[in-house]
Amino acid sequence: MLDSYGVVKNHKGLIEGVQKTIEWIKAEGKTFRLLTNDASRSQGQQKESLAALGLPNIELHEIITSGMMAKHFLEQKITDGKIAYLGTENSAEYILQSGLQHIPVREIDLEDLDEISAFVFLDDEGFDWNTDINKTVNILRKKTMPVILANSDKFYPVSRHDVAVATGGIAKLVETMLNRKFIHFGKPDSQMFMYAYEQLTDELGEINKNDILMVGDTLDTDILGGNKFGVKTMLVLSGNTREERAQLLIQSKGIIPDFICKSVID
Amino acid sequence: MLDSYGVVKNHKGLIEGVQKTIEWIKAEGKTFRLLTNDASRSQGQQKESLAALGLPNIELHEIITSGMMAKHFLEQKITDGKIAYLGTENSAEYILQSGLQHIPVREIDLEDLDEISAFVFLDDEGFDWNTDINKTVNILRKKTMPVILANSDKFYPVSRHDVAVATGGIAKLVETMLNRKFIHFGKPDSQMFMYAYEQLTDELGEINKNDILMVGDTLDTDILGGNKFGVKTMLVLSGNTREERAQLLIQSKGIIPDFICKSVID
Amino acid sequence: MLDSYGVVKNHKGLIEGVQKTIEWIKAEGKTFRLLTNDASRSQGQQKESLAALGLPNIELHEIITSGMMAKHFLEQKITDGKIAYLGTENSAEYILQSGLQHIPVREIDLEDLDEISAFVFLDDEGFDWNTDINKTVNILRKKTMPVILANSDKFYPVSRHDVAVATGGIAKLVETMLNRKFIHFGKPDSQMFMYAYEQLTDELGEINKNDILMVGDTLDTDILGGNKFGVKTMLVLSGNTREERAQLLIQSKGIIPDFICKSVID
Amino acid sequence: MLDSYGVVKNHKGLIEGVQKTIEWIKAEGKTFRLLTNDASRSQGQQKESLAALGLPNIELHEIITSGMMAKHFLEQKITDGKIAYLGTENSAEYILQSGLQHIPVREIDLEDLDEISAFVFLDDEGFDWNTDINKTVNILRKKTMPVILANSDKFYPVSRHDVAVATGGIAKLVETMLNRKFIHFGKPDSQMFMYAYEQLTDELGEINKNDILMVGDTLDTDILGGNKFGVKTMLVLSGNTREERAQLLIQSKGIIPDFICKSVID
Repeated sequence: MLDSYGVVKNHKGLIEGVQKTIEWIKAEGKTFRLLTNDASRSQGQQKESLAALGLPNIELHEIITSGMMAKHFLEQKITDGKIAYLGTENSAEYILQSGLQHIPVREIDLEDLDEISAFVFLDDEGFDWNTDINKTVNILRKKTMPVILANSDKFYPVSRHDVAVATGGIAKLVETMLNRKFIHFGKPDSQMFMYAYEQLTDELGEINKNDILMVGDTLDTDILGGNKFGVKTMLVLSGNTREERAQLLIQSKGIIPDFICKSVID
Repeated sequence: MLDSYGVVKNHKGLIEGVQKTIEWIKAEGKTFRLLTNDASRSQGQQKESLAALGLPNIELHEIITSGMMAKHFLEQKITDGKIAYLGTENSAEYILQSGLQHIPVREIDLEDLDEISAFVFLDDEGFDWNTDINKTVNILRKKTMPVILANSDKFYPVSRHDVAVATGGIAKLVETMLNRKFIHFGKPDSQMFMYAYEQLTDELGEINKNDILMVGDTLDTDILGGNKFGVKTMLVLSGNTREERAQLLIQSKGIIPDFICKSVID
Repeated sequence: MLDSYGVVKNHKGLIEGVQKTIEWIKAEGKTFRLLTNDASRSQGQQKESLAALGLPNIELHEIITSGMMAKHFLEQKITDGKIAYLGTENSAEYILQSGLQHIPVREIDLEDLDEISAFVFLDDEGFDWNTDINKTVNILRKKTMPVILANSDKFYPVSRHDVAVATGGIAKLVETMLNRKFIHFGKPDSQMFMYAYEQLTDELGEINKNDILMVGDTLDTDILGGNKFGVKTMLVLSGNTREERAQLLIQSKGIIPDFICKSVID
Repeated sequence: MLDSYGVVKNHKGLIEGVQKTIEWIKAEGKTFRLLTNDASRSQGQQKESLAALGLPNIELHEIITSGMMAKHFLEQKITDGKIAYLGTENSAEYILQSGLQHIPVREIDLEDLDEISAFVFLDDEGFDWNTDINKTVNILRKKTMPVILANSDKFYPVSRHDVAVATGGIAKLVETMLNRKFIHFGKPDSQMFMYAYEQLTDELGEINKNDILMVGDTLDTDILGGNKFGVKTMLVLSGNTREERAQLLIQSKGIIPDFICKSVID
């Protein structure tokens, strides 16, 4: 199992050498899954994006996103009404492609919330923050409903030095305004690990969890999640966790990977 | 001492009867001060705004804003460089009219922060949230400096049912992103009470704090601040605290006003 | 799947009629598991305790505790040194019965922490709070190591009206003192659900998650955990969630059970 | 104005040379006040303790404690009933020596709280944590009342390397259990500064705040409080803030002292 961002790619493109690693995995008859907390794009869009970067042979079923977990939850638990969302239309279409209608915050009439049955934070793009964040606060003050957050990350890197506020940051602002906790999906929660594990056992038969390796660049999500799920974990230093701070962070957080490598090609 | 919003005015205009109350105070030879956590407007602008609503005879020195406290702090502690701000140009001009230059976030060059020596959150208006909040996060990640918040209120009412995210909410989002606490001004902190008290003793000679009454609509700011400062406190039910919830809130917070009235005219 | 406390028993003993419900489940050829966040007692001790209350025929493998999850984690990730703990000797023996030695906080020499390789919060009993909480803070300030919390509940009921601070509350105090987050086990995390699900599929073959019902008395743990795992959920009003507040809590939290019943016997 | 702990004394006794500094201040005709967040001892007990350490000539009125502020608040706002407390009998006697009766938590009957009108956290000593913290939680769940915290410090040093949980830590645990915020006294709040300032102007006539220097060892309390009050501030490196980390902390917190010295004798 590989985390995507910081392991396979970063803000500049593919991590050097990752093509060879993927080829080697496949040549050795090993199986892998990409587990990503990116909920703004579907499996298909992730596949296209990786192909455009130079990884053409990742298959759909090898990609597992936190958005898929949120989608599954919504399908099971929300059975009527419309699902309101904050994000791009693209992200809404893939997460919300179940039978239910979805409606962006900007099109919602604050005086008529009867039909709205759930709310999803999908992406930090695709809407005007000045108006739509305020509108979101008022929608959720007026009508209580399940609120889903498909990716808890508070920020993401946009260049070597700069970050941007992610959906998780915006949702946190709304949680603070309302003094409420929303329902969060994505690593370190076990769902994605479990989903991948079930897929793998379906494909390959019984697997010992000790024979699975989770590779990630972030202690709090990839490594903690993998440790709690019970698979082996490897921290790579090609993403969020810089080499010079790795030992300090491991010690201060008490989240201990089984292995540490510079990058996935080592 | 009177809180402004919820006591003197609300989203619809003046609280009914407040003109008569102010006239009566003046006729009786009593003295008052308006203490407001609104940092987006100067004393002069507040005076004009009250005059436009129908209270023409409030004098400049009778208005005390949290912005004045922030301004005073900046004048004393920041002696060179430029002060970056998030807010309207209007709010910047009055708070930052000391010798130092000020610069809105949108004009800052992220690659050249050498001259920036402090940062102030002034208003929730006057900038593009999508770009300038992200830029603020990156400015403060790249250069550590004093960050001032002139009004901690997380939201303010815009109609009978709706609220808007205030400067305090935006600053809280940035605090969360950076895992840092900024320097907050405004009630319940003692500065505004102390400033008013010093003014009053200058004008009237020695005053017993028990002879001062703080009138406010919010337990956490007006009443707690007044209680801690040592003056008598009166909660009015014409603003944030609704009559049906007042006793519950007083009990659950343990913030006990000396008096409770429907409004300042009672 | 049944939560234990508030569903099967409460502070007074068994919930009335639960024996018949269990008998009916068994007579119908249905299968059940008790999922409890109580980490202070082993499966065997839980079984004895239920038998003493009047439920003699619960079998060992039908009981799943958050302590078992913590134990499993420790066995996999901590391979040498001694495990320090706060709790009773009983709780320590069952959680820490792997090859590794365990040592209570009171016996630790603050000047010699070399051998201590992990720390576990097990119970709110079995130690002197005045001395051992302070000692815990100093141990964890001096040496960083994985810190495990086998039950995040902050309090538990001791009578109809009174509660006691649980291990989760004490751990939260230490987290605050150290400005650190420990590794939490127990519902709403998926591990216990997953463990139960794997057991059930081993025993019964392929099971559709929709054919599993999680019964619990707490929205934040039982129902949220069940909803996220993907099974059906039923809230019972015989424990933490009182009938008169149930709808309000469901709405305000947005955690929606599939069914609501007065108790497990209905 | 001098902070006491870390400036005048530390866990080993007086800071070397502080006697000479105090003598020099007095010889120069300058005035000083000790401002301490220690609420467990009265002015008289503080004076005795300093005399025992080798500072015999500190006068009562030169000592200002956060406990005095809490006492003043209670006298003004609590006019009947009994005041419950957690702490030593000593601390209770001095803080609660007003007309009202006080009662330690261990003597309170949980079934008869009618007479209890306020609660004060005074000290981390003088009670059994196992029983009395639980009892405190239940008292405050059963009856809502003002809860006062005379010292927010979460821990205090007991040796060069070790700390102990302070009243503020215990109060924080209870705040977490109850999901409530208590009323906090002590620096960085302005009351003690204001109290000292009023005393000084009474004694010496009009004083410019710029002619007052606050000396402290902690950025978050002494320096932030002094900066917000408007006096000059000096950080000494003889206490909580170690020399090697001072610049980093100043930058990361944005709390900037006007001066920095190794200790008060420089």
